[in-house]
Amino acid sequence: MGKKILIIGGVAAGPKAACRIKRLMADAEVTIVDQDSLISYGGCGIPYYVAGDVSDEKELRSTSFHMLRNEAFFENAKGVKALTSTKALSINRKNKTVLVENIVSGKQTDLPYDTLMLATGSTPIDLPIPGTDAANVFTVNDLHKAIAIKEMIAKGKVDTAVVIGGGAIGIEMAEAFTDLWGVKTSLIEYMDQLLPRIVDKPFARIMEKNLRNSKVDLFLGEGAEEIIVVDGVAVGVRTGKRTIDADLVIIAAGIRPRGELAKEAGLQTSDRGAITVNERMQTSDPNIYAAGDCVEITHLVSGKKFVAPFGSMANREGRVVADNIAGIPSKFKGGIGSFIVKAFEVAVGSVGLSYEMACAEGFDAGYSLSSPADRAHFYPGQAVICLELVFDKKTRRVLGLQGSGPVNDGLSVRLDAAAVAISAGATIDDFGTIEMAYSPPFSPAIDPINAAAYIADNLCDNRMRQIDLEVFNDWMGQPEKNTDWVVVDVRSEREMAPYREKFGDTVWLSLPYDQVRSRYDELPKDKKMIIFCNAGSRSYEVQVLLESVGFPNTEVVPGGFNIISRMGAEWLPVL
Amino acid sequence: MGKKILIIGGVAAGPKAACRIKRLMADAEVTIVDQDSLISYGGCGIPYYVAGDVSDEKELRSTSFHMLRNEAFFENAKGVKALTSTKALSINRKNKTVLVENIVSGKQTDLPYDTLMLATGSTPIDLPIPGTDAANVFTVNDLHKAIAIKEMIAKGKVDTAVVIGGGAIGIEMAEAFTDLWGVKTSLIEYMDQLLPRIVDKPFARIMEKNLRNSKVDLFLGEGAEEIIVVDGVAVGVRTGKRTIDADLVIIAAGIRPRGELAKEAGLQTSDRGAITVNERMQTSDPNIYAAGDCVEITHLVSGKKFVAPFGSMANREGRVVADNIAGIPSKFKGGIGSFIVKAFEVAVGSVGLSYEMACAEGFDAGYSLSSPADRAHFYPGQAVICLELVFDKKTRRVLGLQGSGPVNDGLSVRLDAAAVAISAGATIDDFGTIEMAYSPPFSPAIDPINAAAYIADNLCDNRMRQIDLEVFNDWMGQPEKNTDWVVVDVRSEREMAPYREKFGDTVWLSLPYDQVRSRYDELPKDKKMIIFCNAGSRSYEVQVLLESVGFPNTEVVPGGFNIISRMGAEWLPVL
Repeated sequence: MGKKILIIGGVAAGPKAACRIKRLMADAEVTIVDQDSLISYGGCGIPYYVAGDVSDEKELRSTSFHMLRNEAFFENAKGVKALTSTKALSINRKNKTVLVENIVSGKQTDLPYDTLMLATGSTPIDLPIPGTDAANVFTVNDLHKAIAIKEMIAKGKVDTAVVIGGGAIGIEMAEAFTDLWGVKTSLIEYMDQLLPRIVDKPFARIMEKNLRNSKVDLFLGEGAEEIIVVDGVAVGVRTGKRTIDADLVIIAAGIRPRGELAKEAGLQTSDRGAITVNERMQTSDPNIYAAGDCVEITHLVSGKKFVAPFGSMANREGRVVADNIAGIPSKFKGGIGSFIVKAFEVAVGSVGLSYEMACAEGFDAGYSLSSPADRAHFYPGQAVICLELVFDKKTRRVLGLQGSGPVNDGLSVRLDAAAVAISAGATIDDFGTIEMAYSPPFSPAIDPINAAAYIADNLCDNRMRQIDLEVFNDWMGQPEKNTDWVVVDVRSEREMAPYREKFGDTVWLSLPYDQVRSRYDELPKDKKMIIFCNAGSRSYEVQVLLESVGFPNTEVVPGGFNIISRMGAEWLPVL
Repeated sequence: MGKKILIIGGVAAGPKAACRIKRLMADAEVTIVDQDSLISYGGCGIPYYVAGDVSDEKELRSTSFHMLRNEAFFENAKGVKALTSTKALSINRKNKTVLVENIVSGKQTDLPYDTLMLATGSTPIDLPIPGTDAANVFTVNDLHKAIAIKEMIAKGKVDTAVVIGGGAIGIEMAEAFTDLWGVKTSLIEYMDQLLPRIVDKPFARIMEKNLRNSKVDLFLGEGAEEIIVVDGVAVGVRTGKRTIDADLVIIAAGIRPRGELAKEAGLQTSDRGAITVNERMQTSDPNIYAAGDCVEITHLVSGKKFVAPFGSMANREGRVVADNIAGIPSKFKGGIGSFIVKAFEVAVGSVGLSYEMACAEGFDAGYSLSSPADRAHFYPGQAVICLELVFDKKTRRVLGLQGSGPVNDGLSVRLDAAAVAISAGATIDDFGTIEMAYSPPFSPAIDPINAAAYIADNLCDNRMRQIDLEVFNDWMGQPEKNTDWVVVDVRSEREMAPYREKFGDTVWLSLPYDQVRSRYDELPKDKKMIIFCNAGSRSYEVQVLLESVGFPNTEVVPGGFNIISRMGAEWLPVL
């Protein structure tokens, strides 16, 4: 008989490794153990199942050719034994066995292994507040809960829902409730922005405006302090500022890696509980591998360890585990946290480090904001995407790219190309010549990814100076407080008129772009000029021109109206 | 006064460099010279203007903020002088002057320069056949011709059109005529496939089927031998095989770089007439730079020189010229020929080398074909994309990626990420862990780019053996000729039934994927088995399984039904 390969965890990394091992080592005895009765499912699809985009949960655990990935499928099609409803209790590394318990029968068994793989995944973070154990309070981490949530909604039992947590899953669940089901949904986030630590303010604001426009009530900077329970049923959520009715409460406050089994067996784990692995996904015991949400990997920009809880990473890592178990020396070098989320008509994503994270990691970071068209500006259906390129000012290395756009892959195109480049250590200059495949239906002649690098180059070399958008919005909110600056709007007469009318020309000066060269002497020399246009590019040109004729005190509004209007700002004239 | 910068050519690279130079050197005197009266336009947009997607030619020469890029715009907004209708006759490198002639007045002038830039572009290849000078025979290389073509069609003068040349422009023009205007359009290509030397057969076939489905008459492997002219007007095109009526003839037989001016001035040019430049886009005269269609650049895969006639490349190169003229030592390292074309509902694209080109370049090349979903297979609106990863079998370096898919950016995403990786010299193993941003609306958990690499890995290590699709189609066209092979269809009973019925089980055996493990002994040991499924992945699994139980003589149909059906094949049962 072949080697005994035992795999704990049957959702993503585990099944991927199991099937590949069986293909590489036909005579191996491969066994997957999972405490759940349902395995090998697309957990990231749960919001779409709840929303109704995916009508049956079986679709989430079927192959692309519509076979259900159950125990029989793994046995018959893959030659892999799947022991479901079976919990791994402990690892005996000396004897090379794992003690498991069938959670239906209670029967315990020692399963022997030659090589063990841990794919124990992650578990939702418990909120330390009262009421989380009520029947209608859910986390979104397995299919059973997804089925229960959808059943409640489909039966008409849910008029109001509260989602606690403004990360990707919280946002997706809020969309699911609101979009198809018309549930009045509130989203509470403890931090003062959505997607904290993942994207910078501009993109959080864009997603916030998008959710509010779509009738989701957002409460930022508010922690849930209590889930109010009456007769075992949650009826509302209390924050420091208010109480919100809820027939259903979702807790999506993040995940933590499930490393207990590994830790108890004496394997090396991190402070956060993640299993430590090398580039071959091998734990501190060479006979035990690990992959997926339960491990920490190397961040290819910061060099630090991090947990990347994505099904995509789990699959890529799982294949590397399989290779190494079968004697192929594949490596998994790490990741950069590539991320994208869609809600309603807007996508927001990030690869590499945000500006905030880059600063926290000690980089001397800068960022370029831009808002170009996602394809030739004359091509029908073109749309604006907003990008932020984060870079190290000293080395010119690109540290990250974030963006937002419509849900048409126009954002993905730039994020994914950037992911490859950032993982390879590319500089601003490398980004300037990335060779995106060009044709008007797919991109402008100067691709947004190149344009973002051009701006970063100008910033890095101090040819361009910009104002922070939050600062600009604060200023514009109380323009009367400032007497030492003025906005210079270089857009067209038609575009600038409502602004001039609202603010007067002590605050909002108008000078169309193509007239600056002949009329710059009309501008005030004693004030800082904040130059404003639609995308930021005309503003930069005007800044350079003004500098050359003796107006050095200017700042560009980066990304211009296109970004500001998508972020939303109360001071903007209603048009 | 500042330096005199003279730029010959005002379409893409020239204006890009001019404006950037002016921003970097405010006091420079920058002059653009162009023989045309219209400058700075998006030539790649011409097919969309002819089609009516772009209603006015002015949109092609306007900025994204709707300002017309004419002489006044360059003067007022950019501080750049544009001399239109002015032809550069010769360069006097000793005196540093260019002799130009105003083609309206005939007046000649010597323009002095400190630094000269050549952005002389390309010119359509003349066909050496009679009739090309008739009034209704056009190439597609400037706006005047585009306007004339559209005018003819809009006036109802065109019932039939013949396009000579099956490259991107020919395909786009065929779409333009057929889609909106309902002109009966024929496309003639001398080679036996569309997009010759750019994509391999499968993707050419997919585009061919797409055009035929959309009512374009295709004649491949036929050269145009004569344009039949009556009273100065073309009325048809004669090939070796037929004569096709035409009220309008388009010649889109490729371009050649315009290097004459450079060559006559003694600058180094290639055999093909392209201007030789170094990484700083400097010609053999250090005071003269060149960029755009008129230069040859280094191919980052083959290491050879090539011409990359894309507006996108011209812009990227133009910026590098500007930097170097202003003393910033930017480099343009080369390109890989990134390419994408859209016609009707199908996109086809390529980055790096095709398999055919890789073999011609002397690589020991292999290719993986795949046809996965472009996003999570359970997500609404997911579609199949077809990909071919070309690799070097010895070094495992990825040499190219080609693909086809719907016009939704799902193909671009993979091509552009691959372009970055290929330019950086990535291997199959690097491709296996490319970290595309994942979420079900944007990609499957195993992204197509990773999956393509997995297959390449299996091919490279001889775990997978495949049949060439053209060979397979030939076989299936005459199954009675072959007695030593049989197809084994591992799809579902419903899918395989019409095939078994058409071919009988001496040619088409059925054995559903999940039954192979228990029923393989029913298979013939004396025949080669061609394993068939929808995407190729089940076939590969079955191949591995059969090998392990004593059936080594199998080949997978790579990409399976998904690719074959998109290519079109007469032997396929009509369903």
